[in-house]
Amino acid sequence: TVNGERLWQSLMDLAEIGAYDDERTGLRGVNRLALTDADAAGRRQVIAWMEEAGLAVRIDRMGNIYGRREGTDPTAAPVLTGSHIDSVATAGAFDGCLGVLGGIEVIRTLNERGIRTRRPVEVGIFTEEEGVRFGTDMLGSAVAAGRLTVEYAHALTDRDGRTLGGELARTGFDGPGCPTDVCLAPPYAYVECHIEQGPVLAENGVEIGVVTGVQGISWQEITIHGRAAHAGTTPTHLRADAGLAAAQIAVHLRALVDSGEYGELRATVGHLVVHPDLTNIVPARAELTVDLRNPDDTQMARAEKALATFLHDLEGSQPGLSLTTRRMARTAYVPFDEGVRKTIAQAADDHGLEHISLLSGAGHDAQEIAALCPTAMIFVRGEYDGISHNPREYSTPEACAHGVDVLATTLLRLADQ
Amino acid sequence: TVNGERLWQSLMDLAEIGAYDDERTGLRGVNRLALTDADAAGRRQVIAWMEEAGLAVRIDRMGNIYGRREGTDPTAAPVLTGSHIDSVATAGAFDGCLGVLGGIEVIRTLNERGIRTRRPVEVGIFTEEEGVRFGTDMLGSAVAAGRLTVEYAHALTDRDGRTLGGELARTGFDGPGCPTDVCLAPPYAYVECHIEQGPVLAENGVEIGVVTGVQGISWQEITIHGRAAHAGTTPTHLRADAGLAAAQIAVHLRALVDSGEYGELRATVGHLVVHPDLTNIVPARAELTVDLRNPDDTQMARAEKALATFLHDLEGSQPGLSLTTRRMARTAYVPFDEGVRKTIAQAADDHGLEHISLLSGAGHDAQEIAALCPTAMIFVRGEYDGISHNPREYSTPEACAHGVDVLATTLLRLADQ
Ligand SMILES: NC(=O)NCCC(=O)O
Ligand SMILES: NC(=O)NCCC(=O)O
Repeated sequence: TVNGERLWQSLMDLAEIGAYDDERTGLRGVNRLALTDADAAGRRQVIAWMEEAGLAVRIDRMGNIYGRREGTDPTAAPVLTGSHIDSVATAGAFDGCLGVLGGIEVIRTLNERGIRTRRPVEVGIFTEEEGVRFGTDMLGSAVAAGRLTVEYAHALTDRDGRTLGGELARTGFDGPGCPTDVCLAPPYAYVECHIEQGPVLAENGVEIGVVTGVQGISWQEITIHGRAAHAGTTPTHLRADAGLAAAQIAVHLRALVDSGEYGELRATVGHLVVHPDLTNIVPARAELTVDLRNPDDTQMARAEKALATFLHDLEGSQPGLSLTTRRMARTAYVPFDEGVRKTIAQAADDHGLEHISLLSGAGHDAQEIAALCPTAMIFVRGEYDGISHNPREYSTPEACAHGVDVLATTLLRLADQ
Repeated sequence: TVNGERLWQSLMDLAEIGAYDDERTGLRGVNRLALTDADAAGRRQVIAWMEEAGLAVRIDRMGNIYGRREGTDPTAAPVLTGSHIDSVATAGAFDGCLGVLGGIEVIRTLNERGIRTRRPVEVGIFTEEEGVRFGTDMLGSAVAAGRLTVEYAHALTDRDGRTLGGELARTGFDGPGCPTDVCLAPPYAYVECHIEQGPVLAENGVEIGVVTGVQGISWQEITIHGRAAHAGTTPTHLRADAGLAAAQIAVHLRALVDSGEYGELRATVGHLVVHPDLTNIVPARAELTVDLRNPDDTQMARAEKALATFLHDLEGSQPGLSLTTRRMARTAYVPFDEGVRKTIAQAADDHGLEHISLLSGAGHDAQEIAALCPTAMIFVRGEYDGISHNPREYSTPEACAHGVDVLATTLLRLADQ
């Protein structure tokens, strides 16, 4: 078993970097958007911990960071673990960080026990997993796995027009590249420990989840052009109200979910702005994002089509209204490897921890690395319905330690194969 | 008749102050929000024109500016004309400016002809007529007319928390006060020339409108508190989605309008923001404004009540959702004086200009001054369905000159009574 107190302390220490006082919850939240100064400070802290633990650190052209502990067999492919430390703007201490700091805690434990593994063990930190700054989630791992190009990623811009490439350079994380540039040489296996970010483990009264896969994610941005007009004098039939159209989309998406006709569809409009954003002016322009999730690829495609049809009809509903959509991110359902899942389940049994199998509602770096090697994830229970992307996000010190115990045993077993 | 070219030149010159290149329309727009540097520059320009025209200028504690031309009878109450020169953020050259610059053009014409009137003639410029910076429209005239207090007005804040009182001081427009502080001594009559900002005159093929009154205006701000949560993992039934609630309000308002059950109701959500405003986070908070218009006070009250009921039900629809509302502005239907309306109609006839009577869809300073003295307005036709609060706002030089001809004749007649 790992040192749960040391793990907890590192989680709390990292959460101080980018911390803010959250007005709504009265709690201390974390705001460490990818490649901001706060994220860079967090990266430097974690690199220092990696080096203290004796890991050889390298950084690739996406700013992905890998810390390596050599094994006894120099020809063997490494076992990889890790996650991300970037956060949304209203985050807690656990999302991503548990996987990275858990990986380092496993290394510390191996060091203390003087355990040598056959295969190298690596701990990875992937850039812009959240996707909220540059618009595409799991970005660093998607480039490492070869699904997206580094050129595509470097050209992505944040809302202020700053490119990801420029921000990598600004923060000093434009590493010289792994042997094969940013493309990761296939590891032997990848295991990621992460908080569940949902209510299923708590509802089932268990601490450990063996993740069967990740549901599909569809992100798009919709821009609506209407016509600015006077709120008092413009007859309703002469309006092209971009704000109203945006609202109709949000309401329609909920209706699609509530219809029950698209399987287990979830839909969220998280970003919504109107312009010129003044009380007595009919909005000339609106921009919103649509986040769809579905564990079933066919149902996802049907939901996307239903939305497209709605947008088409909406455009015709008010003369002068025009809509454009931009694809931000799209991933299909990703199933995890049965062998790795069994190893995780066995490790949980060894620690006497009850576990269940469940699907992930959130996207994770693991779904990208799964294209390179056998992959699975360990979920740790969250309190308060598993609320996440919120300062109330919380997993107990015991739950975190148990998750990392399972991670340690799983990695050890894989590293000796 | 006035000098239409000189009038047009002053409209175009003033429009250069606060001008910007509007991306959407490709036109040059005006952005002169009240008491910004651009507004202050515009005020200084117009004061210079007033002084060139021989007007004695005074400024009250609301930053309202009055330029006075004495009459032959020192005991007679003045005839007042005027409007405002502040604008919305995406404005054209005419809204408000036509009334102020038209008033100055009348003075210039009287000077050239050596005409002495019995009563003084004053040209007023009222502060924050648009209400989009500090949240209450017709603010300067409402204080001048005694409906709102100067303390209330000075304490209003913009979105950055700057007070109106502070901005008056910063821009140097905290005048020492009229004889009776900011409260205006009742004029003999008030006449305001303004663009229609709507399609009625064009539809009727006439250039001049005699305004019968102003419909009621109801502005409120709604703040919604929900709960930030992960878009991928949070089951729909566990969400308290503040952004969805905001969208539902916007859609419901349009349904109230379309129902036809609230008379000639118009409803606009011009301002809408969500927080934290990120793709994969269910919005924790949303803020929106509701602008309702109704020519019938009873129907307006019914619509406000229907909205309040909807908000109450909405609060119950998602556990964890809470709503608060704040009244920003509220005016009842204001009828204009029959005598002044007849004088305007007669003046239009004298100039051989066809005219119709119509109600104003927009709020105007005239509706506040109407509490002090007999008041009415002259409307000038706008092109492109009378679009306003938009850079496309346009009235022809001829239409503007004709409107100010009617203003001149009306003022002359009233000033000799
Ligand atoms: N785990 C996590 O929060 N990932 C961010 C991508 C997503 O929205 O699912
Ligand atoms: N005339 C005008 O645009 N007034 C602003 C107040 C309103 O929204 O009606």
